[in-house]
Amino acid sequence: MSGAAAGETTKENILRISAELFARNGYHATGMAELSEAVGRGRGALYYHIGSKEALLFDISKAQVDRMNKVAEQILGSDAQAPKKLRELARALTQNIAEHRSEWTVFFREFTALTGERREEVLQARETYEGAWRRVLREGVHEGTFRRTQPVLLKGILGMFNYSYLWLEPDGKLTPRQVADVFVDNVLTGLAAGQVEE
Amino acid sequence: MSGAAAGETTKENILRISAELFARNGYHATGMAELSEAVGRGRGALYYHIGSKEALLFDISKAQVDRMNKVAEQILGSDAQAPKKLRELARALTQNIAEHRSEWTVFFREFTALTGERREEVLQARETYEGAWRRVLREGVHEGTFRRTQPVLLKGILGMFNYSYLWLEPDGKLTPRQVADVFVDNVLTGLAAGQVEE
Repeated sequence: MSGAAAGETTKENILRISAELFARNGYHATGMAELSEAVGRGRGALYYHIGSKEALLFDISKAQVDRMNKVAEQILGSDAQAPKKLRELARALTQNIAEHRSEWTVFFREFTALTGERREEVLQARETYEGAWRRVLREGVHEGTFRRTQPVLLKGILGMFNYSYLWLEPDGKLTPRQVADVFVDNVLTGLAAGQVEE
Repeated sequence: MSGAAAGETTKENILRISAELFARNGYHATGMAELSEAVGRGRGALYYHIGSKEALLFDISKAQVDRMNKVAEQILGSDAQAPKKLRELARALTQNIAEHRSEWTVFFREFTALTGERREEVLQARETYEGAWRRVLREGVHEGTFRRTQPVLLKGILGMFNYSYLWLEPDGKLTPRQVADVFVDNVLTGLAAGQVEE
């Protein structure tokens, strides 16, 4: 689990290894001494790069959400129709969760350990991301590809993908992209316009 | 948050209050002294009723899954068709998550802190529960109400409901039952037989 991956900065390396430790043993149960040993740097260097254990949890929790927000911005800026945008959002998220399961595990399990402004910022980034999906559902209704649905359905759709941090294997029988497509196919059929409104 | 609810046994009371503490502050960060104070019993009484902190985590994690397995057995034993069975499974789970958010939060966040046989038992109970949903999907295919789908879709469907421990409010705008129905309506449309197979 240790060692630097290709193209990683020192900080990215620290974040990745710390995320693996936090995911395996829990944030509270992992001390700075243990982190220091796992990343192979002295405590001084660790503090220099990350500041504090809570700052580390913040960076881990926010890095992937920020990345997903950038991807979402690109997807929403394209001129594709809503069903295609939804599929692209789902594929990108599923791929990212498969590649960063430790980070997502830490995010979902431990973000409540964040306090004050750090907590607010992470929640805000999540809110922005959920907002991107919400816009796609709305666009679909406007362009006539989706039927009008209850806003809460979005929570269910996101749950399909978010929950996958618990079971998704990057090298599973289906690729993350195929998993995303199976879910999206089901969701899109349920969203398709032209059905009798319930 | 303290105090006994109507009809609760001493053990149920301890489990509920401990789950609230674990959900709020984390399993590792909560000590026996704090638990003892929150439930209003001496440490001796606490150990008498629960044995150890890990035994407590086990009981919290397993209680609701066991309950859901009993409900699932009843639903699967009925002579309803698969779409109705799926709806009933979903309603029961969503209602239970709304009423026991702390317990589900502890289960999803902390069950990896369980070791040995306790961990195996909880995973086994989860497997049994997932198996009940799987059987319903299969029954639907056999009776001709559901199309044949990829097995992984079940993970997505369960994710819709499981993920709700993070956001479902018992007193929200929609009742848990209505939330379940919104999700199930979407899923059932995607599962319905007679579509072009993808």
